Amino acid sequence: MSDYRAPIEDMAFIIDEVLAVESVLGSLPRFEELGVGVDLTTALLDEAGKLAGDVLAPLRRAGDLQPATCADGKVTTSPGYNEALQQLGAGGWIGISADANYGGQGLPEIYNTAGTEMWNTANMALGLAPMLSSGAALAIAAHASDAQKQTYLEKMHTGEWMGTMNLTESGAGSDLGVMKTRAVPEGDHYRIYGQKIYITWGDHDATDNIIHLVLAKLPDAPEGSRGISLFIVPKFLVNADGSPGERNDVYPVSTEHKLGIHGSPTCVMAFGDTEGAIGYLLGEENQGLACMFTMMNEARLKVGIQGLSQSEGALQKATAYARERVQGGVPIIEHPDVKRMLLSMKALCEGMRAFAYSEAVTMDLAHSGPEDERRLAQSRLDLMIPVIKGWLTEVGMEVTSQGVQVHGGMGFVEETGAAQYLRDVRIAPIYEGTNGIQAADLVNRKLGRDGGATMESVQSAISETVAALKAADHTELAVVAQNLEQALAGHVESTQRMLAALGANKAAALGGSFDYMMQTGYLFGGWQLARGALVAAQRLAEGSDNTFYRTKMATARFYAEQILPRCESHALVAAQSEGALLDYPVDWI
Amino acid sequence: MSDYRAPIEDMAFIIDEVLAVESVLGSLPRFEELGVGVDLTTALLDEAGKLAGDVLAPLRRAGDLQPATCADGKVTTSPGYNEALQQLGAGGWIGISADANYGGQGLPEIYNTAGTEMWNTANMALGLAPMLSSGAALAIAAHASDAQKQTYLEKMHTGEWMGTMNLTESGAGSDLGVMKTRAVPEGDHYRIYGQKIYITWGDHDATDNIIHLVLAKLPDAPEGSRGISLFIVPKFLVNADGSPGERNDVYPVSTEHKLGIHGSPTCVMAFGDTEGAIGYLLGEENQGLACMFTMMNEARLKVGIQGLSQSEGALQKATAYARERVQGGVPIIEHPDVKRMLLSMKALCEGMRAFAYSEAVTMDLAHSGPEDERRLAQSRLDLMIPVIKGWLTEVGMEVTSQGVQVHGGMGFVEETGAAQYLRDVRIAPIYEGTNGIQAADLVNRKLGRDGGATMESVQSAISETVAALKAADHTELAVVAQNLEQALAGHVESTQRMLAALGANKAAALGGSFDYMMQTGYLFGGWQLARGALVAAQRLAEGSDNTFYRTKMATARFYAEQILPRCESHALVAAQSEGALLDYPVDWI
Repeated sequence: MSDYRAPIEDMAFIIDEVLAVESVLGSLPRFEELGVGVDLTTALLDEAGKLAGDVLAPLRRAGDLQPATCADGKVTTSPGYNEALQQLGAGGWIGISADANYGGQGLPEIYNTAGTEMWNTANMALGLAPMLSSGAALAIAAHASDAQKQTYLEKMHTGEWMGTMNLTESGAGSDLGVMKTRAVPEGDHYRIYGQKIYITWGDHDATDNIIHLVLAKLPDAPEGSRGISLFIVPKFLVNADGSPGERNDVYPVSTEHKLGIHGSPTCVMAFGDTEGAIGYLLGEENQGLACMFTMMNEARLKVGIQGLSQSEGALQKATAYARERVQGGVPIIEHPDVKRMLLSMKALCEGMRAFAYSEAVTMDLAHSGPEDERRLAQSRLDLMIPVIKGWLTEVGMEVTSQGVQVHGGMGFVEETGAAQYLRDVRIAPIYEGTNGIQAADLVNRKLGRDGGATMESVQSAISETVAALKAADHTELAVVAQNLEQALAGHVESTQRMLAALGANKAAALGGSFDYMMQTGYLFGGWQLARGALVAAQRLAEGSDNTFYRTKMATARFYAEQILPRCESHALVAAQSEGALLDYPVDWI
Repeated sequence: MSDYRAPIEDMAFIIDEVLAVESVLGSLPRFEELGVGVDLTTALLDEAGKLAGDVLAPLRRAGDLQPATCADGKVTTSPGYNEALQQLGAGGWIGISADANYGGQGLPEIYNTAGTEMWNTANMALGLAPMLSSGAALAIAAHASDAQKQTYLEKMHTGEWMGTMNLTESGAGSDLGVMKTRAVPEGDHYRIYGQKIYITWGDHDATDNIIHLVLAKLPDAPEGSRGISLFIVPKFLVNADGSPGERNDVYPVSTEHKLGIHGSPTCVMAFGDTEGAIGYLLGEENQGLACMFTMMNEARLKVGIQGLSQSEGALQKATAYARERVQGGVPIIEHPDVKRMLLSMKALCEGMRAFAYSEAVTMDLAHSGPEDERRLAQSRLDLMIPVIKGWLTEVGMEVTSQGVQVHGGMGFVEETGAAQYLRDVRIAPIYEGTNGIQAADLVNRKLGRDGGATMESVQSAISETVAALKAADHTELAVVAQNLEQALAGHVESTQRMLAALGANKAAALGGSFDYMMQTGYLFGGWQLARGALVAAQRLAEGSDNTFYRTKMATARFYAEQILPRCESHALVAAQSEGALLDYPVDWI
């Protein structure tokens, strides 16, 4: 049995107390009848926590040992996975933040985000199925005709059917413009021909039908990325009554033998090997990439959450072990260096969570906030997303590796389950746009497009937090204030330097972008923990004697002292990106 | 087929030009007849490179897919491993630096170190067999009676037999004092009873006999670590004529299912399950841990080399991929962030190599140098070893992970072989003393025992390198000088702080020890690269037009600009170890 326990106390603290979703989201027209607030948060987190802990987590190791397999043109999933997915769907969790008119729950993204964290901590391989499916549903919701929506959406939101995303080809990964999959018009539909790779949950036997979204090129389409269209290709064509009908010409060819997420079938998919797969245009011709981009923020937020989730799993397992394992007469949790590792893991987990959840609320505001605030919220979200995806997944590698280290030799033995977090999370810095691409997006597009104005507004907000920390006149908060202020000053400088480099020497800006992204992530994580510490201090001042609030203050201080200083090195490295990095001839590498 | 090519040019540059072994070691009595110098270096590196590339490397993936297995009390090794081990032994490589009077080659440790790098890059799982075996032989050479030496040493040095180290028990890992294995006197020998875990190459069918070294407690031995003795327990008792005789009562019970190094059988070993395993005391009673400690420096140097070796393998694979893989119309090696990753991997590899090789020569001087210099060399070596073991293996995790990242999605697919470097190297920060223990050893013992005097002498040497860099009056070297000087100043400060903490607040010193160790490692790596850059500049000034020298200068500059700044953050973190890290109650974690 698994011992994953969802960190409900911290989640609820962030959602209800720090981000105050009741006042921020509760009265918005989209949510006003749902009763957004403490009771709803509690009920949702409790229910999700049970499902994650009792149903999904016990399958984590089984899926690792018995990967999904592909034979005779179909995929068989790991033991128990299909039933667990059906429970997820039946519980309304897949469509939790989807349109209530099409079978969704219509709840804010922040709850979807908390759920996503739980499914993925419990079982990342399984958690990918609803993640990809809801992404596909989102694309249909955003771009499909009414008839298409009627046909697919409700079944996808309720988990009766699932969806996939078919983008990558063997020669077309980060650069999709060179893809070869073709779509040939034929009456009201198209015939799709081509092969896609790395298709997550590309085939399975968990649902009656699978709705593939496929990028392909029309005849005479413009060259490159402007000539790509998006198609709906159901595994079974849908009958007039909505039931699955004839088998479509799309089949899994094989599944990859991967480092991790073994329970997630990563398929090579063949479209149109015999008569051509029947597909329906989704959105406009040649607008396929733009259609995909509209749901990229959601997808990248969730991949970031995967970095957090594996870290949380690693933390829980390592902490339990360190309390039990005695060496030198005491539990190893009391050895200074083991304590340092665990606190570092914990502070990073809570910093990642506070940061990512904060921007899930920004996403809600961008989608459903007051009309006149949406644009600003969207700008902030666009700026934050590459940092969330990049920073959380990099930190995920570090924390899961530390989880192994705390276990000593036991960590290297697969039975322990610590190493699986490290193996599973290793894909997160790669897919949904590599972290190098996130860094380039942050600097080149998100900073560049408004000359740093949005970043400046975030920096101002951090500055306000620093002021509040100082005003609180409290020893622990003063330490946080000092370290945060220093990190902020360094970040303001780095940002100016990046903006200048963007104008003067773009290769230098790109060369420094990764370290700038990391610097930004560490700062934002520390900022959100500091906001939490302020709330906790307030509660304690009001007379609460909840130890949880004391831990939040101590953790924020630990982060400020032991994690925030990393900003300094990243700044120094980014600042020197114009030197040897540019001058070094690639032939010499 | 593997495509590992030993980095002979860099190895030879360090050995012959930077470390100048011909003048430093060549005329020492122990080595004077061996012709230590350029020709010997070239011959050895060429031969070893062929063996590593042609024989060991092609078995790397096979061993990963077909791990060693244990059944019916014996281990069957991965396909081809036994033959490769026999070649290693027959070539004289296992006993390369062992006593020539007992079948060794008597060569300096620096050549053993280069060989160790090659075997481990080519195949870390296989490389562990000679590593452990030569460690056991070293213990016998240092502590055995003449008769014992006659019985075991030559066969072990020539690879006819192999040796193992049996230390850990399920309740006794970092704290060996609580072990339960017993040794009962019986005439001229002892009967050993107990179970050991994590025994690397604990059993196999590669050689006729296996010489187990086993830690156990005598009846009425003192409590704790002062009551442990060391025993020789041969798998087959040795007949009077030196041939293997009766089977001894020591058997492998099982092998672990591990994250990596699948080709290395990690055994649970049962001693004395029936009549008691016959063992012979090695060294003095109750001096077992001290005997083990005498060869710890060699073992930890080699584990550090494993960190380097997996990094080198990852670098070679990633570089080859990045030259081939085209995205956006150009090979991805030209994308600024991919170039950054590769250069960072390369600079770290060369920094690790330059640092570790330099201290292999220190080891030679400590063992075989002029009598009056040995003590100083030994002090320096003792100081360096925890940094080499800790820093190289931590960096190994980073570089192998970057190797995966460069491959994009391909990196996550096991077939590529990139992920195996990451999986294999993950044990290196754990075994042979966890990196937390290395950090504590560095600060608590190595700094503490002479009040920082040895560290100060190293800092003076770095200061001389800075002066030489400045004196060279060369733009590239000036950049290196500036960054190195800054990193050195920070390190002098950190060292003072650590020494002060050792006196005032030991928990704070231990809490900051890991970051201090990392700061030290980054500094020393940069220092040794700077020394190499000075040599390269000299050669170019003398008229050489070898591009290799230019790359050494450019890499040193890259390291100075893009890696050395990490010292800053580690210093800041170590400096704040007295805050939340100490105050945080462990119950709150």
